[in-house]
Amino acid sequence: MLENKNPARTPLSTLGEFALIDHLTQHFQCQNSSSVLGVGDDAAILDFTKGQTLVSTDLLVEGIHFDLSYMPLKHLGYKAVVVNLSDIYAMNAKPTQITVSLAVSNRFTLEAIEELYAGIALACKNYAVDLVGGDTTSSTTGLILSITALGRASKKEITLRSGAQDNDLVVLSGDLGGAYAGLQVLEREKAVFEVNPNNQPDLSQYGYSVGRQLKPEARKDIIELFETLKIIPTSMIDVSDGLSSEILHLSKASQKGIHIFEDKLPIDPEVINICEEFKINPTTAVLNGGEDYELLCTIKQSDYDKIKSHPLVSIIGHVTDFNSGCQLITGLGQQIPLTAQGWQSFKGEED
Amino acid sequence: MLENKNPARTPLSTLGEFALIDHLTQHFQCQNSSSVLGVGDDAAILDFTKGQTLVSTDLLVEGIHFDLSYMPLKHLGYKAVVVNLSDIYAMNAKPTQITVSLAVSNRFTLEAIEELYAGIALACKNYAVDLVGGDTTSSTTGLILSITALGRASKKEITLRSGAQDNDLVVLSGDLGGAYAGLQVLEREKAVFEVNPNNQPDLSQYGYSVGRQLKPEARKDIIELFETLKIIPTSMIDVSDGLSSEILHLSKASQKGIHIFEDKLPIDPEVINICEEFKINPTTAVLNGGEDYELLCTIKQSDYDKIKSHPLVSIIGHVTDFNSGCQLITGLGQQIPLTAQGWQSFKGEED
Repeated sequence: MLENKNPARTPLSTLGEFALIDHLTQHFQCQNSSSVLGVGDDAAILDFTKGQTLVSTDLLVEGIHFDLSYMPLKHLGYKAVVVNLSDIYAMNAKPTQITVSLAVSNRFTLEAIEELYAGIALACKNYAVDLVGGDTTSSTTGLILSITALGRASKKEITLRSGAQDNDLVVLSGDLGGAYAGLQVLEREKAVFEVNPNNQPDLSQYGYSVGRQLKPEARKDIIELFETLKIIPTSMIDVSDGLSSEILHLSKASQKGIHIFEDKLPIDPEVINICEEFKINPTTAVLNGGEDYELLCTIKQSDYDKIKSHPLVSIIGHVTDFNSGCQLITGLGQQIPLTAQGWQSFKGEED
Repeated sequence: MLENKNPARTPLSTLGEFALIDHLTQHFQCQNSSSVLGVGDDAAILDFTKGQTLVSTDLLVEGIHFDLSYMPLKHLGYKAVVVNLSDIYAMNAKPTQITVSLAVSNRFTLEAIEELYAGIALACKNYAVDLVGGDTTSSTTGLILSITALGRASKKEITLRSGAQDNDLVVLSGDLGGAYAGLQVLEREKAVFEVNPNNQPDLSQYGYSVGRQLKPEARKDIIELFETLKIIPTSMIDVSDGLSSEILHLSKASQKGIHIFEDKLPIDPEVINICEEFKINPTTAVLNGGEDYELLCTIKQSDYDKIKSHPLVSIIGHVTDFNSGCQLITGLGQQIPLTAQGWQSFKGEED
């Protein structure tokens, strides 16, 4: 698990700050016409004369957002970018540029930081975004990553959280709970490894879930699908903190109630198996698990036929008036109010 | 020095992450027409359909970039914004928006973070920029601030580091060395305070320099002056790391040599007094001190008459061919090559 894949160990102190930035960004080439000037001056220059500009930013702190004992640095770099791009897609927009700032303590070697940037570069390539700026500094402890993503969309395409209307359908991409299930597996293997470092974990039967945790993807394909099908969602958000929390955000911003159906929630069979193994209610993993980076949106009833049997999305509920609240309707017809308080406290309510 | 001005001490844990963001950003109103939607959705929406867009980002880490034992949090918030805006001005552009991300450990109270945001709000007001987004998270240690600034300018106004031409004049705003001198005073008073906490420092004779360190300003006025005088600099950078380092940046980007004259370097009399007190060569403080956030640029000889006796700027040198290098010409006509290695090593060369 902690296999050393980097025999070369160059201390960061052998490079100055500017040399480090030059070194890390030398292979990044701009590919968007809106990137006029990338890294290397006081600021990047961008051209957003067409349409509107979107900006979103995230700060990731070691020990809070990631654990390097099971998160390879390349995956971390990839995930850090994807998480930000997901916010731009959640506006029904296309990301075009990122800036990456990095604070790093001297326990990291140059090779380790190169791994991190290899992941960042791969995400830039896969999502066709340009790295146009950033800052690199030392840290007294650990690794801190701050990423800002920029994107663009035409004014009429941009989708806020606040546009849901009565009787709209609630649409979710992909499936949920996988990243949370994967985290449970990784935390268990870490504990086993700490007791017996010679133990080699067999993660083969958990591949989907571990992948969802370590290398999530942003739903570029869903935004492209909506464009092809000429669907502009009435409201949208990405599922970073668990479905419950995101439903409540849409509800609050739109001043509408939202009802979702337990038997419509998409869960991968592997996730159900892991939940059984860990004695977790799969619905709880879906509602409060987080980190799946799927898109949750509402669409007009008139768009139903365009999307009803599409394999990439599920229709999981509908929008109601604000007073009827946010509810999970169970298979038995029971209504459970959605809360955003983490699965422990939610479990308490089920008892 | 550590006087408690905040008797109320609300733990951050009493608010959730979303409530904290709402609380901190509730009084921020957008004032730029390019800010379409600020805080509150997955991304901010901006309108940059006129001209070009500039983006710059900085990461500030407690213990590396600031010391809270003498830096009040309100000043820190103000300075963190100003430092970023300075990068946008250094492109001959006008900043319009910022995003602020914050990682904070539980040793900070809500009131402390409110102080920080009061400084951020004041900077936004003074420079007419809008806070449009950010992220708030916990940290295992200390305080980390990541700020991204956006701005705009017409294509023909934007000034890179790379445009200096032979015989251009080297122009500097304000004076240098003050922030570095102020830091020496604050570090000494901190050491005195640690020995005797009852000692109340008298900083009255160091007011200018301490102010330069604790509450720097970005040179908005210089960009406005250039606009009024119809001067577009041929190259420009802000002085964040000391004059030597910035001269070398312009030289490298423009592939030109730059000669500056020791007796033209602007230094405040108070800074000279502090340098005498601390036995520092004032020229060394100017060349390697850093954090003054003045603007360093090159202009065409034909613009000389517009600016020659203006009190806000000094003409400190000229641009030469690349082979003649970057040199300081002393009062005695000696040429000393400029280096960017901090004052200790530079001092070594003088010996």
